[in-house]
Amino acid sequence: MSELEYVKNLAIAAKRASKEIAAADTRTKNTALRNIAQEIRHQENEILGANKQDVTLAKEKNLEPALIDRLTLTSSTVHAMADGLDQLAELPDPIGEVSVLSERPSGIKVGRMRVPVGVIGIIYESRPNVTADAAGLCLKSGNAVILRGGSEAIHSNKAIGECVSRGLVETGLSKEIVQVIETTDRAAVGALITLNDYVDIIVPRGGKGLIERITKEATIPMIKHLDGVCHVFVDKDADLDKAIKIADNAKTQRYGTCNTMETLLVHRSVADAFLPKICAIYQEKGVELRGDDTVCALVKNTSRATEKDWYEEYLGPILSIRVVDSVEAAMDHIATYGSQHTESIVTENETTAQKFLREVDSSSVMVNASTRFADGFEYGLGAEIGISTDKLHARGPVGLEGLTTLKWVVYGNGEIRQ
Amino acid sequence: MSELEYVKNLAIAAKRASKEIAAADTRTKNTALRNIAQEIRHQENEILGANKQDVTLAKEKNLEPALIDRLTLTSSTVHAMADGLDQLAELPDPIGEVSVLSERPSGIKVGRMRVPVGVIGIIYESRPNVTADAAGLCLKSGNAVILRGGSEAIHSNKAIGECVSRGLVETGLSKEIVQVIETTDRAAVGALITLNDYVDIIVPRGGKGLIERITKEATIPMIKHLDGVCHVFVDKDADLDKAIKIADNAKTQRYGTCNTMETLLVHRSVADAFLPKICAIYQEKGVELRGDDTVCALVKNTSRATEKDWYEEYLGPILSIRVVDSVEAAMDHIATYGSQHTESIVTENETTAQKFLREVDSSSVMVNASTRFADGFEYGLGAEIGISTDKLHARGPVGLEGLTTLKWVVYGNGEIRQ
Repeated sequence: MSELEYVKNLAIAAKRASKEIAAADTRTKNTALRNIAQEIRHQENEILGANKQDVTLAKEKNLEPALIDRLTLTSSTVHAMADGLDQLAELPDPIGEVSVLSERPSGIKVGRMRVPVGVIGIIYESRPNVTADAAGLCLKSGNAVILRGGSEAIHSNKAIGECVSRGLVETGLSKEIVQVIETTDRAAVGALITLNDYVDIIVPRGGKGLIERITKEATIPMIKHLDGVCHVFVDKDADLDKAIKIADNAKTQRYGTCNTMETLLVHRSVADAFLPKICAIYQEKGVELRGDDTVCALVKNTSRATEKDWYEEYLGPILSIRVVDSVEAAMDHIATYGSQHTESIVTENETTAQKFLREVDSSSVMVNASTRFADGFEYGLGAEIGISTDKLHARGPVGLEGLTTLKWVVYGNGEIRQ
Repeated sequence: MSELEYVKNLAIAAKRASKEIAAADTRTKNTALRNIAQEIRHQENEILGANKQDVTLAKEKNLEPALIDRLTLTSSTVHAMADGLDQLAELPDPIGEVSVLSERPSGIKVGRMRVPVGVIGIIYESRPNVTADAAGLCLKSGNAVILRGGSEAIHSNKAIGECVSRGLVETGLSKEIVQVIETTDRAAVGALITLNDYVDIIVPRGGKGLIERITKEATIPMIKHLDGVCHVFVDKDADLDKAIKIADNAKTQRYGTCNTMETLLVHRSVADAFLPKICAIYQEKGVELRGDDTVCALVKNTSRATEKDWYEEYLGPILSIRVVDSVEAAMDHIATYGSQHTESIVTENETTAQKFLREVDSSSVMVNASTRFADGFEYGLGAEIGISTDKLHARGPVGLEGLTTLKWVVYGNGEIRQ
């Protein structure tokens, strides 16, 4: 059987199963989530054993340490996966609600009903816990899902997929509601992203290379998760104590996340007062600094940033810094080099804050807060499939609602169009 | 200059102009709409003259009469275009509203702000009035737009585009907010749909062939307008008087629209009572009937429908009819052959109605109403760019809101992530 046939068969089964899960009631879906969580706890040894295989192979292939780190599961991460599913069971069910009906002059009553999207294809990289998280989010939102994780995590993903299948079947649901692609052939991805007749959305999560390839080849709508080149702008009217806290936290609280600040923009009139202080903190924490001429003159041990630096998502302890003459110049920099993910202004000036909020075209725009808050849990969504850098449908952190859609419902009493 | 360079230059200018129109206040946008309407009224003769050129060329090329009909403008359609723009000026501005802010445990306040999408590319066929309608909708929703109409309407579109430019400039806005592609080369479409750095959405409107080609080639998200294979299902518990009115109206009120019924499904237990009556009406109106064996046995002058008929969007006075044994069989038929556009059930049984509403996966699902109501004006949107057959972002009739998106806004007071 070719990769295309294999994936097509999964997709046909998923489409059939999608009707079943779309019609399932809240109690059934929550029971399934809890059953899967229990299966994961019971199969901890099997999952860790499979994961060990993956990690050993990854080490043999000399894959980079950061990847091996993301790949590695422990007893505590396995339990965190199970707990995450139990928490999903506690969230409200997004499906079925009908908006207020409005009566139209013709006599018909028009409303919108929240429904699942149908079949979702998720393409991700090395973290095996995404397998459980994504399965849970899709199930709770009434969707069938086809999961395609990184080839280096294949044994872990199969073991987790087994637990999901068992949990579904125990609940009396079809195991085809959640399917893991069990081949590591790249052609499987190419097949998945063009099966328009069966798959309704593709959610790609991963590096720029992967997402660009998928964007080019896919014929199915996507909710993309691209890079986060996030900015903090310290305005001339900033409270510098807040600015220090925010600029420190946005860069150093975690280096490898997409909502981490990668470029710090500072208004020229506060550069003298602000930069030496914040840069001392960075350098103490081992952050490499790359600045423009003004920054290099003000701060020791700073190298000259190149044009390429302004575009860079370092995902590590490196920061580029630029001094600008105005909020407009800061916004121009963001529009030119940013990735429309998350930007924050530090200012006490309400007019400047409003201008920044209105005009910066990013999925999250903040005033006096750390970019690290751009997150489904911090925003109160309860869970998150990722942070979308697309503008349509779901922008920014995507929770259960992002995996649903609205259809129009019309109640008539024999009305006809005049 | 190549087609790609030409379109890229338009797109770069559109992106620049998109910031200007995104920041424009409601009064300015409404003034622009009214100025454009006035220009169209003043330039009536020029528009009709340009249209005459297009129609003459189309006749010389022996293009089909239906196309020439759609292409032809009259004094009254020109005034209808202008009136449409005045009506858009009366609608509420969708931009700028911020949802209720919720305070999170961290102290940040989180909300969502409605903002324009940015730059929209609209690809359509022969109707020149779309040029004015689409320009108005994009302008009101704060977007810049690039319009690419059918090559047979190029002179009409240029003339209308001239009026739009003048109306914008009179208002003190840049004319690059609305641009008409002035080449008929197909390569221009190929260029437009891959300029991801400048264009945010593509709205294709047109036949299946056009949409399939664009879906394959585009790398930009789309709001598609595909075919409408719409169904009415007359249930065993139908009020047959309502069923007659609805089935008649859904088919014969207008033949060429995407929300016209193409297949009538009838429950076996009411077939005897219902089919001869409704079919007499159809045949009197000159509708050609194609049915299954039961229909052919019950109704004279009915030909046998083939498998292909169930998939067909006739867009004319032809109807396929099938007798089914249950609501489930009707829903199976719809799922197999429908285009997820609009379906209606005629029934007095509340449980059956709810089942149909919940389980039919179409952009509009109706009870006891004509499918012809699936329309932005009838639903109260005030205007319509088209009817989306996509599931993401905008499903069904798309009004101003469908051309906007939500970004997250966060108000903090120096909060950092723990």
